[in-house]
Amino acid sequence: MATVHMSTNGIDLSVVQETVKAMQQDPDFARCQFRVHNQWIDGDHSRTTIESFYAGKQENSHQTPFQLDADEPPMLAGRDEAPNPVEHLLNSLATCVTTSMVAHAAVRGIEIEELECDIEGDIDLRGFFGLENDVPKGFQNIRVTFQAKSDADSETLKSLAEFSPTYNTLLSGVDIDLRVQGPAQAGAGEQRPEA
Amino acid sequence: MATVHMSTNGIDLSVVQETVKAMQQDPDFARCQFRVHNQWIDGDHSRTTIESFYAGKQENSHQTPFQLDADEPPMLAGRDEAPNPVEHLLNSLATCVTTSMVAHAAVRGIEIEELECDIEGDIDLRGFFGLENDVPKGFQNIRVTFQAKSDADSETLKSLAEFSPTYNTLLSGVDIDLRVQGPAQAGAGEQRPEA
Repeated sequence: MATVHMSTNGIDLSVVQETVKAMQQDPDFARCQFRVHNQWIDGDHSRTTIESFYAGKQENSHQTPFQLDADEPPMLAGRDEAPNPVEHLLNSLATCVTTSMVAHAAVRGIEIEELECDIEGDIDLRGFFGLENDVPKGFQNIRVTFQAKSDADSETLKSLAEFSPTYNTLLSGVDIDLRVQGPAQAGAGEQRPEA
Repeated sequence: MATVHMSTNGIDLSVVQETVKAMQQDPDFARCQFRVHNQWIDGDHSRTTIESFYAGKQENSHQTPFQLDADEPPMLAGRDEAPNPVEHLLNSLATCVTTSMVAHAAVRGIEIEELECDIEGDIDLRGFFGLENDVPKGFQNIRVTFQAKSDADSETLKSLAEFSPTYNTLLSGVDIDLRVQGPAQAGAGEQRPEA
């Protein structure tokens, strides 16, 4: 007998149901670790490789490793060869609120016909350059504006986007353990402490 | 007479000095707005375009528009065609702490020969799926480990990376104004309120 895959918004609901069921039966199934590796190239230019992640109680490899570059525009001494790091941050937010709205709509039977969003974020570079201690180094505020074509009302769609992991990370902040290992610890790559 | 461009770590110091001088003379020169536009494609797949930004008291266009895709792996009902949104977040952090360390080292005359970093971030998907209200929807914690080849000590290099805008945005959190405009406001693209 053929399996019927119910799909809404292009989301295969049987996959989502399987995943949710597995998490309900065993909370460890929900524990994920995402990872990136970055290699500095020159000046403002660096390259990130994304190959593996831990999810569903196992190590997983992407079907192909992904590569993302970052650079800066000329006024920040770059060559404008790729988005800059804070544009990458806004991209993370844009894609995350979008996917979250679409997926949570799907499991509720809400169809979305079209969806796009614009994001703007303000930064005062005096913070980054250390010119003013009371100016934040990061984004001062971010505005997300969706244009949605759906029968659902705007408040409902907004509440679904708010499940987004990036949105919640940015709203609440997160602990970051930042370490620098130098040449004095040669071979430190092998000795990297377990998290 | 030829202009001598002093460069450290591939950063043209005359450009940085010009930018800093302009900000000191006029704080408005430091005000930046970065922007992305995202178009949902299907399922977990969406595409971000990055074309323009405001900086240095003027509108600026990237020399070519940048495009970034996001998708999800199969266990999250995607086709694994691109990094997922939270991997994009870690990429933003990786590239931002790297660029910040390199640029701030350059203006201090600190040479960096080689630099790479690994980032790991933990998420419990029960938050995203709304299965447990006390489980955060975003990252629970993030670890950044640099391998640096430089004469400078690790503590100094760490303090330079900490100027990073993405790092500070993630540490402190940021206000996000999230709005959904539906078909009831047809043509809303033209009527979008000024920020």
